[in-house]
Amino acid sequence: MSDRAVIAAILRVTDGGSSTDQDLVAAEAPLEILLAHGFDTGAEAPQSIGLVMRTPGDDRDLVAGLLVNEQIVFDPADILEVAFDAETGSGIEDAAARPARARVTVARSVNLDALAAVRRVLDRTSACGLCGRLAMQAVQMAGGRRTVDAPQIDAAVIASIPARLRQGQAVFAETGGLHAAALCDLSGTPWLIREDVGRHNAVDKVVGAAFTAGRLPAVDSLLAVSGRVAYEIVQKASAAGVVGIVSVGAPSSLAVEAARAAGMTLVGFVRDGRFNVYCGVERIGGPGRAPG
Amino acid sequence: MSDRAVIAAILRVTDGGSSTDQDLVAAEAPLEILLAHGFDTGAEAPQSIGLVMRTPGDDRDLVAGLLVNEQIVFDPADILEVAFDAETGSGIEDAAARPARARVTVARSVNLDALAAVRRVLDRTSACGLCGRLAMQAVQMAGGRRTVDAPQIDAAVIASIPARLRQGQAVFAETGGLHAAALCDLSGTPWLIREDVGRHNAVDKVVGAAFTAGRLPAVDSLLAVSGRVAYEIVQKASAAGVVGIVSVGAPSSLAVEAARAAGMTLVGFVRDGRFNVYCGVERIGGPGRAPG
Repeated sequence: MSDRAVIAAILRVTDGGSSTDQDLVAAEAPLEILLAHGFDTGAEAPQSIGLVMRTPGDDRDLVAGLLVNEQIVFDPADILEVAFDAETGSGIEDAAARPARARVTVARSVNLDALAAVRRVLDRTSACGLCGRLAMQAVQMAGGRRTVDAPQIDAAVIASIPARLRQGQAVFAETGGLHAAALCDLSGTPWLIREDVGRHNAVDKVVGAAFTAGRLPAVDSLLAVSGRVAYEIVQKASAAGVVGIVSVGAPSSLAVEAARAAGMTLVGFVRDGRFNVYCGVERIGGPGRAPG
Repeated sequence: MSDRAVIAAILRVTDGGSSTDQDLVAAEAPLEILLAHGFDTGAEAPQSIGLVMRTPGDDRDLVAGLLVNEQIVFDPADILEVAFDAETGSGIEDAAARPARARVTVARSVNLDALAAVRRVLDRTSACGLCGRLAMQAVQMAGGRRTVDAPQIDAAVIASIPARLRQGQAVFAETGGLHAAALCDLSGTPWLIREDVGRHNAVDKVVGAAFTAGRLPAVDSLLAVSGRVAYEIVQKASAAGVVGIVSVGAPSSLAVEAARAAGMTLVGFVRDGRFNVYCGVERIGGPGRAPG
């Protein structure tokens, strides 16, 4: 067990009766993110840029991924340091009084006016608790349009990805409660995998880890996700520069539209050797590709 | 097919080959919500309180549910009118230029200063696109603590809920891409059911519909959900006043903490006649309850 799972006392009920038992549940706790320029003389107070509910672990990746997806940082060197205040318990009373905090120091070249500009827009649109990241301008995609090349991805490779994703999910097997996201090369091998109780967080973590390693844009990679694909997942994939998204679940209509607009391949319902390609069919090759 | 599903041209790939086909995908499109007092003389401009990505349909319920969950309205009479601008297509370029809009007119007794107060807090915390509703004060629960009474819910009733939920899911069968939420009475019968590509939206819709019907707090009801249960779902259930949550999936640690703090029963992994009770065991009765 890791700190990503928590022991809970449960009553286990079956047809035949019930018994008290212990179960592992996926950990969820708030993390506040504070941002400031490095070598600060003290005139500039750190800005709180938000509170995110996440599964503890890989928090540095999560923070980096959020900053990438929000287009605040563009180069690994933009992030000078990420320091964490001591983690609190995950109880809600404790968390409300004192959430865990990430204090991010960025290079002076990072334009925090851009953050202020985002904030000005969001002030008008995300006021009452609707999801701020879904503000209107977010409907515009980050990242440029990809070139659609000749077939590059073998159909058998796509079919193999869910099993490889599951193999890499350490905590899911314990709790049944975590989503996974991975960056896979075009032979289907995951080169980064991250988990979180939140599907979007798992993607942010994997994008952040790749960013920190200097591997974005990941132009020769696919984003593999354990859940369904709605618009926001496509937006994050676009920011990471991948050529496609492979999901075991269903896409939404806007996800298909967005992936098409970004020139990405979007594959869903990858199960038992079968899958559906919603756009970017041109990249799919191999024996399975022979049109029926 | 309804407007909740959209036809997509796909490439269907199997072991044996591939063929072009059509598939239904769950619709997803942005809705902006504008709020103003009724009988306005024109001095007060409508306030945009946010943009939500949702599956079109039951939009009136979604709007009401969001206002309930954000504690802006407390009585069905608080909402005088919800008018909708003509729906646009779901394409991202179209949506960015002209999202669908809900224009909500509320009674003058509704305190929009409360909205401003929420906004002031969120200005500090939800600036860069992190989810505004996860701001720190949201870790405090809406709704009071429930009284834990004697056993009220038969174990067989809980075991029956997922099948009843699935029966009520009209669009899921078409797309495989929609979450469902239902309010069930204590005999397990769903008396309201709503679907959405977003799990949280499905809950907001069902809470909004119950609110509009004057049936909140739903003290003799359970909230049934098709997905996993993280903290926010418990928060919404608490605002609706239900005594418990029944889920086919896994809860998070903070969901368990929050449900316990609110005095709710939280049941997960309801599958094939079995389930786990994470808190509020006292309400579970019936033959399955005999401790093993």
